[in-house]
Amino acid sequence: MNLSRPLLLASNSPRRKELLTGLGLEYTVRVKEVHEEFPAHLKRAEVAEFLASHKADAYLDALQDEVIITADTIVCLGDRVLNKPQSHHEAAEMLRALSGTSHDVITGVCLLSREGKTVFHDITKVYFKALSQSEIDFYTNHYKPFDKAGAYGIQEWIGMVGIERIEGSYFNVVGLPVQKLYTHLVALGIVTV
Amino acid sequence: MNLSRPLLLASNSPRRKELLTGLGLEYTVRVKEVHEEFPAHLKRAEVAEFLASHKADAYLDALQDEVIITADTIVCLGDRVLNKPQSHHEAAEMLRALSGTSHDVITGVCLLSREGKTVFHDITKVYFKALSQSEIDFYTNHYKPFDKAGAYGIQEWIGMVGIERIEGSYFNVVGLPVQKLYTHLVALGIVTV
Repeated sequence: MNLSRPLLLASNSPRRKELLTGLGLEYTVRVKEVHEEFPAHLKRAEVAEFLASHKADAYLDALQDEVIITADTIVCLGDRVLNKPQSHHEAAEMLRALSGTSHDVITGVCLLSREGKTVFHDITKVYFKALSQSEIDFYTNHYKPFDKAGAYGIQEWIGMVGIERIEGSYFNVVGLPVQKLYTHLVALGIVTV
Repeated sequence: MNLSRPLLLASNSPRRKELLTGLGLEYTVRVKEVHEEFPAHLKRAEVAEFLASHKADAYLDALQDEVIITADTIVCLGDRVLNKPQSHHEAAEMLRALSGTSHDVITGVCLLSREGKTVFHDITKVYFKALSQSEIDFYTNHYKPFDKAGAYGIQEWIGMVGIERIEGSYFNVVGLPVQKLYTHLVALGIVTV
């Protein structure tokens, strides 16, 4: 595999770093803090794409030859968007809401270069079994729900014991739709195999 | 979480060990070589369950308090069962067969104790994009298709760039249907949360 220009991942997520490494690509990480607000009229997939695109805007003024990769993952339960929980109580409440039903995980991605922006998203449907209160307590006490939208990591204990099935890309739920990302990087001539 | 009796994983697969560890369970590994043959009249899911159960039989004569976990993963393309490839050529042929279509991954699991056997399986449908010959060559040259049924690992490069979507459990494709396994271990009173 060859890269025609440098990749810059604008995310501190260890999961996104691992996934981009798994794609066999070299990259550097540079993160700028961005306020994650979005217009209230946006629909779900538009929210994920807006936030990814908005994160990329922070890099617009100093672009050189590199391609900036930004991403934002949201968890949607019906019309409700679940963010990162702010407390143990809120994490448990989110998991109770996800219990015994399905929700959608949407990751928006933005590729920014001097030539312009490419923005896309992927959606995965996730089905949780009915979680017991002791399972929810065990997870929130022993794992890290606080840095994750929807208060769970699919790759953690709760994902292993609680998720019966998914429809779509697993890696999209982890935080980066690597198959679609690869396809766009190839289409843009940035990656060749 | 509590374990009421010792678990013994009868598999050398590093992926199965990682998944069982991810479930938060302590276990020891002991592997006996078993000839992996099955009666020709069996249907697909029966093959996976037969092989898992057959692997467990090797432990029947010295059972104490432990629960033995055995598993077998098969890859089914229509009526064809794809095993581990024996050569670079066969691996490439399998990947060409999986390219641009869907197949089913079935993992059979057997839980064996002095009280008896519990055998179950899980099925996941996997959709590959059309793979180019250079993608197939890159994967078979740089990764390890030879210890994997169907010649691919979903958690490796080819899974990231090639798999568009799945329907079912991701971990079942990796090698162990952890959600169903957990449910059975709870139902049998072996695990409590």
